[in-house]
Amino acid sequence: MQEELKVVFQRSGRSVFVLPGTALVEAAGRAGVILQMPCGGRGTCGKCRVRIVAGATGNDVARHAALPSDAFEQGWRLGCQVRVTTPLTVEVPPESTFEYQQRILVEDSGHGGVLDPGVAKCYVELEPPTQADSRSDLTRLCAALGGVTVAPELVAALPAFLREQDWRGTAVLADGCLIGLEPDDTTSVLYGVAFDIGTTTVVGTLFDLVAGESRAVASEMNGQVSQGDDVLARILRIREDASALLTLQTAILDTIRTIIRKLCAEADVASRNIYEVTAAGNSTMQQILAGYDPSALGEVPFVQVFDTAQTLPAARLGLPLADGATVYLFPQVGGFVGGDTVAGVLAARLDASDGPALLVDIGTNGEIVLAHDGKLEATSTAAGPAFEGARIVQGMRASPGAVEKVVLDDEVRLNVIGNARPAGLCGTGLIDAVAELLRAGIVDSTGRILPAEELPAGLPDTLRDRIAFDAEGRGRFILAVAAESATGEDLCLWQKDIRELQLACGAIRAGIAILLRRAGLQPGELGTVLLAGAFGNFIRRRNACRIGLLPAVPHEAIRYIGNAASLGAKLALLSAPVRRRADALRGRIQHVDLSLDPEFQLEFGMAMLFPEDAD
Amino acid sequence: MQEELKVVFQRSGRSVFVLPGTALVEAAGRAGVILQMPCGGRGTCGKCRVRIVAGATGNDVARHAALPSDAFEQGWRLGCQVRVTTPLTVEVPPESTFEYQQRILVEDSGHGGVLDPGVAKCYVELEPPTQADSRSDLTRLCAALGGVTVAPELVAALPAFLREQDWRGTAVLADGCLIGLEPDDTTSVLYGVAFDIGTTTVVGTLFDLVAGESRAVASEMNGQVSQGDDVLARILRIREDASALLTLQTAILDTIRTIIRKLCAEADVASRNIYEVTAAGNSTMQQILAGYDPSALGEVPFVQVFDTAQTLPAARLGLPLADGATVYLFPQVGGFVGGDTVAGVLAARLDASDGPALLVDIGTNGEIVLAHDGKLEATSTAAGPAFEGARIVQGMRASPGAVEKVVLDDEVRLNVIGNARPAGLCGTGLIDAVAELLRAGIVDSTGRILPAEELPAGLPDTLRDRIAFDAEGRGRFILAVAAESATGEDLCLWQKDIRELQLACGAIRAGIAILLRRAGLQPGELGTVLLAGAFGNFIRRRNACRIGLLPAVPHEAIRYIGNAASLGAKLALLSAPVRRRADALRGRIQHVDLSLDPEFQLEFGMAMLFPEDAD
Repeated sequence: MQEELKVVFQRSGRSVFVLPGTALVEAAGRAGVILQMPCGGRGTCGKCRVRIVAGATGNDVARHAALPSDAFEQGWRLGCQVRVTTPLTVEVPPESTFEYQQRILVEDSGHGGVLDPGVAKCYVELEPPTQADSRSDLTRLCAALGGVTVAPELVAALPAFLREQDWRGTAVLADGCLIGLEPDDTTSVLYGVAFDIGTTTVVGTLFDLVAGESRAVASEMNGQVSQGDDVLARILRIREDASALLTLQTAILDTIRTIIRKLCAEADVASRNIYEVTAAGNSTMQQILAGYDPSALGEVPFVQVFDTAQTLPAARLGLPLADGATVYLFPQVGGFVGGDTVAGVLAARLDASDGPALLVDIGTNGEIVLAHDGKLEATSTAAGPAFEGARIVQGMRASPGAVEKVVLDDEVRLNVIGNARPAGLCGTGLIDAVAELLRAGIVDSTGRILPAEELPAGLPDTLRDRIAFDAEGRGRFILAVAAESATGEDLCLWQKDIRELQLACGAIRAGIAILLRRAGLQPGELGTVLLAGAFGNFIRRRNACRIGLLPAVPHEAIRYIGNAASLGAKLALLSAPVRRRADALRGRIQHVDLSLDPEFQLEFGMAMLFPEDAD
Repeated sequence: MQEELKVVFQRSGRSVFVLPGTALVEAAGRAGVILQMPCGGRGTCGKCRVRIVAGATGNDVARHAALPSDAFEQGWRLGCQVRVTTPLTVEVPPESTFEYQQRILVEDSGHGGVLDPGVAKCYVELEPPTQADSRSDLTRLCAALGGVTVAPELVAALPAFLREQDWRGTAVLADGCLIGLEPDDTTSVLYGVAFDIGTTTVVGTLFDLVAGESRAVASEMNGQVSQGDDVLARILRIREDASALLTLQTAILDTIRTIIRKLCAEADVASRNIYEVTAAGNSTMQQILAGYDPSALGEVPFVQVFDTAQTLPAARLGLPLADGATVYLFPQVGGFVGGDTVAGVLAARLDASDGPALLVDIGTNGEIVLAHDGKLEATSTAAGPAFEGARIVQGMRASPGAVEKVVLDDEVRLNVIGNARPAGLCGTGLIDAVAELLRAGIVDSTGRILPAEELPAGLPDTLRDRIAFDAEGRGRFILAVAAESATGEDLCLWQKDIRELQLACGAIRAGIAILLRRAGLQPGELGTVLLAGAFGNFIRRRNACRIGLLPAVPHEAIRYIGNAASLGAKLALLSAPVRRRADALRGRIQHVDLSLDPEFQLEFGMAMLFPEDAD
């Protein structure tokens, strides 16, 4: 294996190991640091600037002309122009990140600043009643807070609270309602959690809503996975057995509780100081989380229970948060196009794009949104969990030991997460492996691993020796021999794995094709393809095009935007005005039901073929 | 005892026994039928017309000149001009009643008709989803209902409901919120209950909210009575022992449940078909009902927990009503001036009166409101439970066996409820007895029962013989001798009873005096005195003036308006717009705290003296 280089990103402290020659923006993406790059990586906009704290990046000043004068000398570089050739320590200023850019855009759009959460605290010191001013307790408090509504539970608590606390305290307000009363001044203690509820993986980010800063991130496998790999399997379970709804709801709530526990431990925050949760997920995930039966998504015409945003009391869900805390679920578009898509469009600001633009959110459920001519059209497609390493013979999640990059030259070069011995193949490794095998001519456009007699003449023996077939003639490609692997067995890409990838790519590619056809657009007319998903930013653009996952557009038109659904959930947590924009967006997004398209099966079949030569 | 005459009132079917010569309006009032009489009983407005179905009323056509032509011949009479001289059966058209008049006034005031309850039902038949119309269940329903909000519990229930009910059913709506879903078309089944929550007595009226008609009335002793006679005693209990709040809340809720059970049994209605409750009570009663600690009413400066109207989920109070049913509590003015006063002013339309007008609501807590110069000023005064027969040595509630009228000439003439042997003295009997003893010169203006040597020379021996004294010189007057009474003992008015009445009258009279003085008005300037309270319409106006309970105004200026708080609660149940008017009224009523008035003690002391001769 080629030696890997460690890149450390400052502020977050996260690090990755990458092969020499990897673009710094890519390395950053793998560390979860999404650099903004509106010019598509051409080095012209100067937005992705970072400072090299340790390590060398060469002296090609001309490549970094978009930097201010003197900046180069001070160690500043354009992330898109740097290739990693030595270990690096890189400082990433917040303003170079995509997240920051999105918040600024929100601020610019006249919503009055991004940090305007739906929950707020207000410390009040009331004048005690006198004979001249004997207003009721409730009126006295409301006069100090402005017009708020107060639920009977809190009215009941008010007299004792005010008198015991000497007419002082902190009011917790959400959406014009009083949700809590706390002794003393606790206005500096206000936390919230933004969740991305994936079919396979759930990610939560704890925010200090006073500072507007994240304090901890934690992820867990969705506890529902044992009840079915994908949303259809889970819907089927509920259709077969009504009690499964509660089982599945309990599973995701347990996952959420676990994440909250981890977040609170990491940031040393008490869960009772979490006052609000936002969550973005697909239709099935959001409905099960709310306890709403998703059965009607299991049959044509795929009907959702709700589409306007839902706000649920956290207590109703058994979440151990502050009294009166709520869980906000994103509005949904229709069918399988759910809250994660709305959150993603919100975060990507796809509605504000110039010219035709595509958002592809890759997960177990793939969501695709096309913006063109002021319209937004969205569809959902069942990619299956292959991209997350599931249903792959030797697959695994993107965790230490997972092969996440494959390069073939005369040798097989692997990049393993955690710089460990390879234990399995994760989604990006799978894509890389297949793309490289296509380039090498070992796999043909139908996805077949070719027998020895059909292999290209010039294929080096070092690669040729790694191809094997079983008794039924099904091929495999040995990525790492037993002596090199963590398991003591050969680590292989199996013929079956390629079929899984073809299904996953085909579903997404067919969805893209149908949206483009409906809009009368050719792939080349897309000015921007935004690649999203917890896993999207690890995909190498060139390889995604090679296997046909993304349409044939110039690579620089493809931009990683990280986990857009998660970012949308964060923005909604940080800003009530943005949340209101989500509701407006929902009404603008038209749902395209692929199952209604007469050509879907044909498109799907065609999309399962790999492009002849897409490089 | 003089023979009594039975008067039956048609439609309600209620009957009373009265002494010959009793005014028909008074007999009606005692039967709970409050005739409207804006002219004050002068026979000029013609509003109180009734039809004599059986019995004789004389042929004095001139007295009934305000009737339309031919009406007299058809048996129509003005209620205010008829005196009962034979047993009567009387038909009372709804439009002659005070309740009806108030509803018409509401209708006239541009609120779009009185019958517009806060809760409504809507039967919907939805189009099932198709591929062309796959809107979410929630959006599909909301589109049919108009903009409504739906709580998570009902969203969760929606998918199964719509599919099991074949996309048809009845939505129950309250205040823009969906509160229930019912199979089939149940729009004809919609009930509500209006409560008057008195310190001593609780009255509930069951209404069919579709027809806008009452179906049953039931009353019960307030279950809190065992915890203290008046509001101060109950507040004190809670101040001494915090757990008493729950005890007292449970007591009133038990009373309410008992009344609901009786109402449902009488009208053959299921309690789950009761969708809304309105309740009017004084500050203490409303707060305890809601579970809000009234302790701050127990010390200067007498602070209420709330003053804007409260809407509580019935389920929170453990009331067995429809899912999602609510309990509306009236807005409150301040201190002890609570929701019953707002409800009473609403019902009496005191805010619309021409010229200075006084509303006196007599109960354990007396409320007094003065309207003058476009202003409304209200005060509350602790009359104690004497008017309801409590704290009277041989007192009892106005139930069968209670002496409710006393006339002295040479004999003692008693009117006993239910035409039974006398068992005790109720509030009106107490007032009558004292007024008659004052007239006879047996009691002097200080309230003392005079010893033999101080009695007027002309007093008949038949009365003189009924006066007795104990060893300490405390007098009593024998109303019925042992042989005539139900108990086998003498039924007496005791010196102590007169003192209780003096306290009760003094409190109310002092309140009236202070409001008049603040407004710079003399009693004679009052054009109208509205006498309200469950018990108010049983009081004989002349006797109320004789004992100084009411100021010296012409008797015809005094009008019974029945239980105004109860009527206000009914109007609020029948009409959401009226309910909103209650909130506006609250802001217009100024609270006068008698305890702050430097002359209250002086006024109170003076008001405890009976007028020298008020007849």
